Parts: sequence; C-alpha cells; structure tokens
Amino acid sequence: MATITKVSPLAPAGFPDLPVIGGVRFATVAAGVRYQGRTDVMLAVMDLGTSVAGVFTRSATRAAPVLDCQDKIGGASDGPAAILVNSGNANAFTGHYGQTSVAEVTQAVSDATGVPVARVFTSSTGVIGEPLPHERIVAQLEALNGALAPDAIEAAAQAIMTTDTFPKGASAQVEIDDKTVSVSGIAKGSGMIAPDMATMLVYIFTDAKVEQGALQQMLGAMTDRTFNCITVDSDTSTSDSLLLCATGASGVDATGNVAFAEALEAVMLDLAKQVVRDGEGATKFVEIRVTGAASDADAKVHGLAIANSPLVKTAIAGEDPNWGRVVMAIGKSGAAADRDLLSISFGDILVAEKGWVSPDYREEKAAAYMKGQELVIAVDLGLGDGQSTVWTCDLTHGYIEINADYRS
Amino acid sequence: MATITKVSPLAPAGFPDLPVIGGVRFATVAAGVRYQGRTDVMLAVMDLGTSVAGVFTRSATRAAPVLDCQDKIGGASDGPAAILVNSGNANAFTGHYGQTSVAEVTQAVSDATGVPVARVFTSSTGVIGEPLPHERIVAQLEALNGALAPDAIEAAAQAIMTTDTFPKGASAQVEIDDKTVSVSGIAKGSGMIAPDMATMLVYIFTDAKVEQGALQQMLGAMTDRTFNCITVDSDTSTSDSLLLCATGASGVDATGNVAFAEALEAVMLDLAKQVVRDGEGATKFVEIRVTGAASDADAKVHGLAIANSPLVKTAIAGEDPNWGRVVMAIGKSGAAADRDLLSISFGDILVAEKGWVSPDYREEKAAAYMKGQELVIAVDLGLGDGQSTVWTCDLTHGYIEINADYRS
Repeated sequence: MATITKVSPLAPAGFPDLPVIGGVRFATVAAGVRYQGRTDVMLAVMDLGTSVAGVFTRSATRAAPVLDCQDKIGGASDGPAAILVNSGNANAFTGHYGQTSVAEVTQAVSDATGVPVARVFTSSTGVIGEPLPHERIVAQLEALNGALAPDAIEAAAQAIMTTDTFPKGASAQVEIDDKTVSVSGIAKGSGMIAPDMATMLVYIFTDAKVEQGALQQMLGAMTDRTFNCITVDSDTSTSDSLLLCATGASGVDATGNVAFAEALEAVMLDLAKQVVRDGEGATKFVEIRVTGAASDADAKVHGLAIANSPLVKTAIAGEDPNWGRVVMAIGKSGAAADRDLLSISFGDILVAEKGWVSPDYREEKAAAYMKGQELVIAVDLGLGDGQSTVWTCDLTHGYIEINADYRS
Repeated sequence: MATITKVSPLAPAGFPDLPVIGGVRFATVAAGVRYQGRTDVMLAVMDLGTSVAGVFTRSATRAAPVLDCQDKIGGASDGPAAILVNSGNANAFTGHYGQTSVAEVTQAVSDATGVPVARVFTSSTGVIGEPLPHERIVAQLEALNGALAPDAIEAAAQAIMTTDTFPKGASAQVEIDDKTVSVSGIAKGSGMIAPDMATMLVYIFTDAKVEQGALQQMLGAMTDRTFNCITVDSDTSTSDSLLLCATGASGVDATGNVAFAEALEAVMLDLAKQVVRDGEGATKFVEIRVTGAASDADAKVHGLAIANSPLVKTAIAGEDPNWGRVVMAIGKSGAAADRDLLSISFGDILVAEKGWVSPDYREEKAAAYMKGQELVIAVDLGLGDGQSTVWTCDLTHGYIEINADYRS
C-alpha cells in the first residue's frame, strides 16, 4: 500500500457524532491481515429482531464474501445477526479457497457470538487474488466478542478503510409517534468507484422496526438515487456491499413512514458524497445536474458520461471551464441529445445555449468559478422532463500516483 | 495549447516513404487559424473518376463539417473531389455560424479547384466552441491550389496535427493483373480517442478503381476491426472523420479483390495503431487479446472494458502486473464471464486460471515483463469461440499534464 498520509482536501471537518443505535454493538481489532499498526477487522452484532437488507456489486467476478451474503440475504429471518469486515485483502478471485475462508470466518463468528451462520454476513476489501489469511481473523473472534460495545461505531469506520483518507459516517433522527428513531451509517471507498456499485462497503443501522421485504425494497430504490449516482473512476469493484440492519430497538415500526424513508435516504446520500469526497487524488467535488432529458434514465446516462469523461475530469482538475468537453461527453453518451437545444451552466454562469457559446459568457468569470472546491455543472437538454443528479470528483496527478503504485 | 515538444516514446522511427497515388495532389499552408509558425491547412484534390467513401463520429453533438460530409457521401458520384482540413479549430458547437463557415470554405475550394461543392469534403480539428476564422482559410485557397503536388502527403500529415507528437502515415502495395495498386494513408489523433470513432482524422488514397457502394461497404466493415478497436481515454470526438478516396488511376478495378482488401485493412490497422502510439502521455503500447468469449461482440466489450479501465491503465503505467484489476474490468464489463473459467496471461506468462492465480505464477517474472514498452494482455473466458483484439496505451502523469492545461 502506498503511504497516503494526507487527508483529502474535500474531507469533512471531522467524524460526526453518531447516535447510538439500540440493539447494535461493535468491536475492532488489529489482526494483521495485511496492514500493520492499525485495526483491520470490525465485528458488529445485532440483537434478536433485526431485519437485514443488502445490495451488492453486479460484477461477474464477485468476491466470495459477496456471493455468500447474496445467498443469505433472501433467506434472512429476524433473529440476531452479525457483520464481520476485514480490510487489506478482498478475498476476490481466490478460487475455492475463497469459499473456504468465508466458511471458516462465518463459523468462527457464529461460535463466538451465538448468531447462526445463516445470519453472519462478511465483507473483505483490499488486494485481489491473494488468499485471505482467515486464521488471523478467526484467532481474534473471542476477543472481538468480548469487546463489543454500543458506542464503537467510529472505530468500526476506521477499521474498514483501505486507501480512504478519512473514516466516513452519517446519521439522522426522526420523531415518529413521539419516539425518536435513529439511523447511523458508516462507509469506506475511495477508488474503483462507479455505479452498480463502487469499491465501497457501507453499513447502516437503525433502531426502527421494518420488515425485511419492505427494507430490501426501500434499499434498492434508494441505492439507485444515491450510491449508484456517484463515480470516481468508472471502475467497479468485485466486493461492493451495502448492508442495512433494522434492529427495532426503538419499538417504532417505521414501515411505510415517509419521514423515516427520507432520513434513511439522507444518510445514504451523505455517505455516498463522502465517498466521492475521498476519491483518489480528488481536489474538487462536482455535482452534475442534468435536466430536460427525454427520460430520467437518459439524464443519468448523460450525467455519468460527463462524470466519467477523463477529459472533463482533467479540465476540472486544471480549473479550465472547458465546456467543449462537456458537449463532447453528451455527444458520446448514446442518450438522446440535440446540439442546438442544449444549454450548459457552470454554477450560475450560463456558458452555452442553442448550440453555441452564450452571448453573455465571459471566460474570466467561468475561470474564477472553476477555482472553487465545490462545483456544479448543469446541463439542460431541452428535450423533455427527464432529470438526474450525479456526483464525481476531478482526475489529478494524485490518482495516477496512488494507482500506479498501490496494489489493490 | 500546451507546448508538447517531446515525441511519444512509442513513435515509429520516422515518417514512412508513401507511394505516390496517381490522381491525387496535396498542398499545405500556414493560415494562422490558431497556431503560429506551422502549417494548419491541407488541401487534397482528386481527379475525375474518384470514388469517395466515409465513416464519421456517431456523436450526437457532431461538428458542422462532419454533418456536411455525411450529407455528401451518400450522393457522391465519381467526378473530381477535394478534401480540405484545418487544425486548431474544430468548428464544433458553433451554432449556425458553423454551417456558414463550412459553406464559405467549400465554396472557396470549389472556386479555386473547379471541383463541384457537392464533392468538397472538409474537416476541422482543434478547439470546440469558438467560431472558425474561415476567412483566413478562404484567403489561402488560390495559393493552395497553385501549390498542389502529388508527393506532398507527408506535409499534409503534418498540417493536420493538433496534440499529435508525430505525423502518421502508412501504405501498402499489391499486384493485381500484373499491375501495381497502391494505398497511402495519413491520420491524426492523440487524445479523445475511443471507438465510434476517435478524435481522429484519417485520409486514405488508392489508385485502385472501386465503385462507391462497394468502397463504402468495405470501409465500414474494416473500421469496426481497426479504428473502432482502439482507445486512448474512452472519450469520443465531435469531429472524427475517415475518408477513403479511390482514384482509379492505376487502371485496375479492385472491387472484390481479396489482396486489395487485405492491403487496405493493413493500412487502416497500421494508422489506428499509430494513433494509440501517440496517445496523450502514453509510455506503453498494449494489445488486449480476448478469446473464448460467448461471441465476438462480447469479446470486444471485455477488451474495451479492460482497455478503458483507469485502474488497469495506471497499473500498466506503474509496471505493476496487477491482474486483479483485469479481473475487475472483466467483471464490470456487462458481457458474459465466469470467474472460475477465466484465464489471464501477460505476454507468455500465465497469470491466472480457474478463478485464481496460476500455481506457476511468479510475480518477479511478470514484473519484469511489465517493464517492456510493448505489452500483450491475453484473456480467455472459456465460454465459446468469440474473440476480439483491441489496442490501447497506459494512463500517466503526461495525460493529466496535457489535459489539465490544453483547451481542446
């Protein structure tokens, strides 16, 4: 691993205070899976009555833990549950040995915690193609189980980091029936980030009670509007996993509650944006708002074409208001566009309209805008009502430095 | 324009000796469209009896000259023809003014050369969104027409360069009916290079006689196997154009002749590879051979997913045999793959097979191989007979340098 000591310039001021979620406890340990001198394994255990929903990478070369989680999510009941995550090794493309490692680790978690194997979910993130030294994890399980504590979520966020430069957390609280329902989530991810999904691990916990089928449905829809709308480099990991656990400890059934759904989606969007803010080498956080497309799906295709274009991303890195590259990206996206109906704005500055540069456009003004750290590129296609917003970062020397050296 | 003085390390030793093509004459001039101190306009005039075929970008935001060429290609007869190309300004996203510029330039070419406007094809390459100062080109047309010469093709290749670090030419000759038929072509392109097509201008001339319909059909099929199999950065230009002119001056009708078809395709592939060799910031030339796919189309999807992956490209730049990223790219491509049937080789080194690292794999050997300048990554999917080969380059600091500064 390259030594990445500098925190992203786009990082939040610090890790937020996350509300403790009743029915969830965390523990972490330095098991020496790959890294030395830092924690690299995190265990979360959820009490009886917890629903677990999950969304996973669609990669055809999915890692062994992902395949195991996918098998289990469908059959999950509302008994107790556990999540074990290691960083440093992805246990991906490790043949049959990979499945053995998952079986060893999940059995050890079950033995230590009393959670049935069918309710033990694992994730691994790090290098691909090297056998997971699962015995180093197994050896720590009794200690991990003994250390479980309700307020250790920040430590959990730290243990799952790989090239991340800061731990990521977000929360929300809503009042339902005069009771407070809380949502707290953590995430990791920095490179290999693209929709469907990213090199991203996300764990979200709530003390609301939501039946598993309803929880899974909410999670899928919200993922499409949050984590599947971010991209760092268009590359998709073999390990992406998002698990959402509803413990019910608040005593509030939030199934179908709009305020709860909004709170959950806000936490997901916050975490998704933090992943972009930690994009490898990122110096600018960019929101791309596409409106006036023939459909929402077309708008997202255009948005992602802009967000993934190396030429757009390098122009942003160079603080160059190079709207011609935005035109290029729209043109190549494959979704419907009419050159002469397009308009493009950088922030409040109308750059191009009706197939040409806006008569009021002044390059100096746009160049000054591009010096900001938070940028908005707005595109209106003038075709229909379709819209989508995606988030990305710039492409800099930092990305090359990290990825030409780091074996991930 | 950033000052790019260093020639690509992957460049050929020099510009090749291209056979003179009967029935074609070239002239170039420094018109000061944008650049100073270099030629930036090229005129080619073809004699009566010339068939012209063309393939163009599918971008939805195509430049005005492209739209004009597309209109004309269908209706082209076999009269005389002319091609005028300027570098420095793409005349793209320039609204109605763009069409006016094309009309002014094509009319001036017609006035000077006597070629009907319907047979005057133009291309523009360079900055997007700025009005083309067409009067600077028009002012040079009488001089250009007076300077036309059969042996000025290298000068033509130089005049059409933008961020290119070397002029690109290729040729082939075949004997048909005891007569020699020649093909000579030139190209430009360096960034914004992706299939369908690239920021690429290509002009190929032959003295064979081929009827326009047959010529167009050949060109389309061959483009899919050559220029549409290369990628530098996955970005697609608004100006890509490939024109193929058959003057018939050799007196040989090559319609349906296999040797001629092979010669033409060899010239196209040679030029396509030269474009990759001049990829912005490139230090490695990479051939990606995909076999065993469910179909040829699937093989190409996998090949391009690998070739366009920023993580694969940066690993190559870092001389890191990071086959895990190849696995990742295959997984995300969307085409059929089975993790446990995959095999991956770097050159002759079998790296991974049956879903895991090959038992004979030695990292040192692969790391030594990656230090080469010409690399082959071979992937067999173990699923069927589908195959495809694509060509790309690495992603380096040079790409960031060029594109964070150059307004293209």
